[in-house]
Amino acid sequence: MNIPVNLPLTRKLSTFVALSKAELALLDHLHQRNRFFSAGRDMVHQGQSGQAAYVLMSGWVCSYKLQPDGTRQIVDFQIPGDFLGLRSVLLRTSDHSFEPIVDIEAAEVLTEDLLEAFAQTPRLATAILWAASRDEAMVVEHLVGIGRRDAVVRIAHFLLELGSRLALVGLGDTKGYDCPLTQYHLADALGLSAVHVNRVLRQLREAGLVTFREGHVRFHDLDRLVKLADFDPAYLDHAGPLLK
Amino acid sequence: MNIPVNLPLTRKLSTFVALSKAELALLDHLHQRNRFFSAGRDMVHQGQSGQAAYVLMSGWVCSYKLQPDGTRQIVDFQIPGDFLGLRSVLLRTSDHSFEPIVDIEAAEVLTEDLLEAFAQTPRLATAILWAASRDEAMVVEHLVGIGRRDAVVRIAHFLLELGSRLALVGLGDTKGYDCPLTQYHLADALGLSAVHVNRVLRQLREAGLVTFREGHVRFHDLDRLVKLADFDPAYLDHAGPLLK
Repeated sequence: MNIPVNLPLTRKLSTFVALSKAELALLDHLHQRNRFFSAGRDMVHQGQSGQAAYVLMSGWVCSYKLQPDGTRQIVDFQIPGDFLGLRSVLLRTSDHSFEPIVDIEAAEVLTEDLLEAFAQTPRLATAILWAASRDEAMVVEHLVGIGRRDAVVRIAHFLLELGSRLALVGLGDTKGYDCPLTQYHLADALGLSAVHVNRVLRQLREAGLVTFREGHVRFHDLDRLVKLADFDPAYLDHAGPLLK
Repeated sequence: MNIPVNLPLTRKLSTFVALSKAELALLDHLHQRNRFFSAGRDMVHQGQSGQAAYVLMSGWVCSYKLQPDGTRQIVDFQIPGDFLGLRSVLLRTSDHSFEPIVDIEAAEVLTEDLLEAFAQTPRLATAILWAASRDEAMVVEHLVGIGRRDAVVRIAHFLLELGSRLALVGLGDTKGYDCPLTQYHLADALGLSAVHVNRVLRQLREAGLVTFREGHVRFHDLDRLVKLADFDPAYLDHAGPLLK
């Protein structure tokens, strides 16, 4: 049996559970119905029901909510290995919209597939609950960020969090990572104006901490940036498998 | 076999899964190690590891994060039927603190218990994943609230959400509910000052919409309040069991 262990979701869940061959095969099986979506067109609309969940295999997606006044709040960005709309399937009505930021590939996952996989191995259910908990911890961090952090700390924290998440699935390291986000994305995620984001990014660059330009984030002085942002990655839980 | 179907967690999960007798018994079994905690003393500290998870059986708890500058951001309030620290157990290090607002009773749940329960019924795993998704949806709502809603809408939305959650576990109805929170709790949860909260509550009362006084929230005109807050309870998913 030939099992690809380099699927991003598999890499991610391996952080939490030392996966058996059977569990790897089950995860592989969840990646059978691959779909392609184009940048800029919503995959799932807020308020839509009956839609599927996906596992993102390549590319970036943003999830957002539109406010009655037309402004949008970006809730989070999804990177390879993340679920798209798992919450929406479970809660039946999507509480937010998903928009691919670049062209993406994603595997469709049906509720039956999940139930079937859970029935075969409760460890996988726990691992997916872990991933959902980690997603929630990130939203909590963003909540705290918008509630209490100033713009410089908020942006520094955000760039570090993304770097840490991407490194987990092999898409970045301590030097930096490719990033297709615009300053408008950052603004809508962090509750700032694009002009403000631009000014803060210049400050961070001129301070010799980090450069975000032409689709790439480069860390110049990771230690000082971590200190500035008071970034403690414990909530991302990358300490190695809890379930052996 | 005598199975109490009125445990708050059981009531809550029944919204999502039509529970079998065996599943009810399993849930009952998760409520064996009951503990009592006093108001005002942290049960779990931010940064603590190796702690247990709990299911809240009676009373109210708040979960919060302390910022480096000493301010605190309340992430959410837990009511009967909610998990306390499930995320912390899965992520190993608690990313926040829990403080009982009144004296509470909670059942301790070990990771092994959960794994064992999931092994016996994957439907229960899905139901708990549903509950975790619902918790995440609430944090997302709070994020959007702090990011984009004005103080009046934010407080109205918050009081409606609490009412809806409490009604699900039999602790409130369309007339109102008992609520031990102070204006300081509301302030720290909603990113406002206590003075501001006080002023908005007076406005809402004088407009004949809702009164929050002496530990009780009373809805005077639910329809108008729902309209003012643009409250759409879809994200709380109370539409009846998805899994029959």
